[in-house]
Amino acid sequence: MADSRFSFEGLIAKNAPEARDAPVVKRGKYDFAVAYPDPASLPIDGLLDGLREAMEQEGADLALYAHQSGYAPLREFVAQKLARDSGIHVSADDIILGDGSGQPIHMICETLLDPGDVVLTEDFVYSGTLGQLRRFHTDIRGIACDQDGMLPDALESAIKNAIGQGKKPKFIYTIPTFQNPQGWTATKGRREAMLRLSHTYGVPILEDDCYVDLRYEGESVPSIYSMDDTGSVMYTGSFSKIIAPGMRLGYMTAPKPILDVARVVKSGGSVNQFAAWAVHRYATGHLDEHIVEINNIQRGKRDAMVAALGENFGSAAEWSEPAGGLFVWLKMQEEADLQAIRDKVLDAVDVGYQSGPLFAPDGVSGKNYARLCFGYNTPEDIREGIARLADAFAREGILNA
Amino acid sequence: MADSRFSFEGLIAKNAPEARDAPVVKRGKYDFAVAYPDPASLPIDGLLDGLREAMEQEGADLALYAHQSGYAPLREFVAQKLARDSGIHVSADDIILGDGSGQPIHMICETLLDPGDVVLTEDFVYSGTLGQLRRFHTDIRGIACDQDGMLPDALESAIKNAIGQGKKPKFIYTIPTFQNPQGWTATKGRREAMLRLSHTYGVPILEDDCYVDLRYEGESVPSIYSMDDTGSVMYTGSFSKIIAPGMRLGYMTAPKPILDVARVVKSGGSVNQFAAWAVHRYATGHLDEHIVEINNIQRGKRDAMVAALGENFGSAAEWSEPAGGLFVWLKMQEEADLQAIRDKVLDAVDVGYQSGPLFAPDGVSGKNYARLCFGYNTPEDIREGIARLADAFAREGILNA
Repeated sequence: MADSRFSFEGLIAKNAPEARDAPVVKRGKYDFAVAYPDPASLPIDGLLDGLREAMEQEGADLALYAHQSGYAPLREFVAQKLARDSGIHVSADDIILGDGSGQPIHMICETLLDPGDVVLTEDFVYSGTLGQLRRFHTDIRGIACDQDGMLPDALESAIKNAIGQGKKPKFIYTIPTFQNPQGWTATKGRREAMLRLSHTYGVPILEDDCYVDLRYEGESVPSIYSMDDTGSVMYTGSFSKIIAPGMRLGYMTAPKPILDVARVVKSGGSVNQFAAWAVHRYATGHLDEHIVEINNIQRGKRDAMVAALGENFGSAAEWSEPAGGLFVWLKMQEEADLQAIRDKVLDAVDVGYQSGPLFAPDGVSGKNYARLCFGYNTPEDIREGIARLADAFAREGILNA
Repeated sequence: MADSRFSFEGLIAKNAPEARDAPVVKRGKYDFAVAYPDPASLPIDGLLDGLREAMEQEGADLALYAHQSGYAPLREFVAQKLARDSGIHVSADDIILGDGSGQPIHMICETLLDPGDVVLTEDFVYSGTLGQLRRFHTDIRGIACDQDGMLPDALESAIKNAIGQGKKPKFIYTIPTFQNPQGWTATKGRREAMLRLSHTYGVPILEDDCYVDLRYEGESVPSIYSMDDTGSVMYTGSFSKIIAPGMRLGYMTAPKPILDVARVVKSGGSVNQFAAWAVHRYATGHLDEHIVEINNIQRGKRDAMVAALGENFGSAAEWSEPAGGLFVWLKMQEEADLQAIRDKVLDAVDVGYQSGPLFAPDGVSGKNYARLCFGYNTPEDIREGIARLADAFAREGILNA
């Protein structure tokens, strides 16, 4: 039979991404690998109650194909939240709901990117966006950062350099608040500098603000979108970290020329109506309180992780102490290769983490870095997991504390 | 301020689809425009009960990012249903869940299509797929059909013609069962002929089988997938018509080289876990019975529409009498322009329909055709709506019954 098999050779699109087997993901008991929220405080009952209420009120509409932008009352909720919390004043018509913030990011990428286009972003940044950018065969260039955000001089040089090559960057992608994976929050001054460069060179900004609600202390910094009066900023947010990733609900707003293409490229029709109903009913009246509750929980988890790093890693490593978000960015000595030993560590001590290259635009830099997520495990397990990680690193000869 | 606005001119991707305003869709009371299922028989309680059960059993997993292919037990359910009902024997690993069947169709399009590629399909076909094909700037060519399906000679000519132009078709897209909008079901002989041509010329088939469960009488015809032993068929299905469109749940299976790219291009991560839980728990043990129930209801609706057409349109028109699915395909005299008067008819008599050009690969043919969906309204309202439609057509001078 083998020679009668149909061949798809030559039929796959020239610009299709590389084929990949279905990932088999092994999780550690001490799961610092993925930015999950706290599983014990998920509002299971609130979502069920909210859904029941919505089904009683408008359940028959489940028979309909909803508006491509998604459930209007939830868009209205998002518009009000953005106005109140982030100084972003847009109408529900200016918002498109998507599956998480991943889909809105995809929609913006497909709207703007041709193969070979340049996109600028932080030197280590969210791997999901890097995956989207690679899918569109983007020339991704990382900009050096310090604890205050992207370095303006480095950003300006990169823009000028790309323009000099005839490849004006299509956009700057940034996670300015509790940056993934680095943990810092860009200062107001740095945000102003980014905007100035955006306006000077005509390069728009995509502001991914999916962690902004997870602030454990300190004052919030204005969103880049709210500081702009020209319409050069696109903005994405998500319910994944403040309600649950499994709800697959996020959103975007952007100037109309972008929205009008993004809506057309959106895959799968309206966002899931069933999930949107549950989140809308639950969020109205409950979300603020829930955010206070989960931030109290996650503050304790962050403290546990930072303390455990101090106890177990001492002066042999550096790490961020983020004021919010879900991760600590760990830096070991230059020679350490945390990528090479990752699977071995997972097998040996049941601790999962992601190493730097996953977050590097070039896919190889940062082998001596690891992202440690503290949202999922209990504080006790975080302490135990970090102690186990230190043991494993010591056995590999990369922790000489 | 006007001259300080940021301009996105020159930044939109060269191959992006045309920008479009958010659609404002006016629905008629007699809504024959969209293929909605019966709203009164939606399994609201069953879905809520199913979700509650799943949340009790594994609610904490809502904190996780699920497998890119979607909730494994629901994929297992789909695999078993496909084996039992459609002679399709694949494992849960060979299935990817998506938002409706629209997203799987998008994933296959993005996997295979470069701008300008040729795709062959029925001369009138599902507008959502046409939209996806246009988004990828496909050269869409319609194949003439009769009541038994695509005409094999026409299909072979089109394949040869495209190959002669150096543009071997990337795939044949077909809805063989209760075809949308034409209503016919392709015979076993026609399916065999399509497969022979697929094998002879090396052109794969995308079989969209989203109406297959909605059979109101007669014997089922084997799926094209089940008749193929070479791996040239890709297959999509959906829960939209047998549970609800608002659940946004569908699926695909295909040979591994396609699955391994489709999974990467899937937008938005795993399919909605919340909705997948509800559908999995509900469908297990309830779906078969539910399908019998809705088919009894929809058989009555079809009968009402066909009878009302007979009473009101007499010999002045022709229409299909489908053995399943959700639509009747109405043909008026050649000169009638049902597209031009559609909005006027909706305003005048509150009856909605879609005219032929929406389903035409060229976007203009078929102005004297209309698709009339009978899933949404009650039989009484269907009779009233068809009478009103006949009145409106008569006033426009295109019905001289």
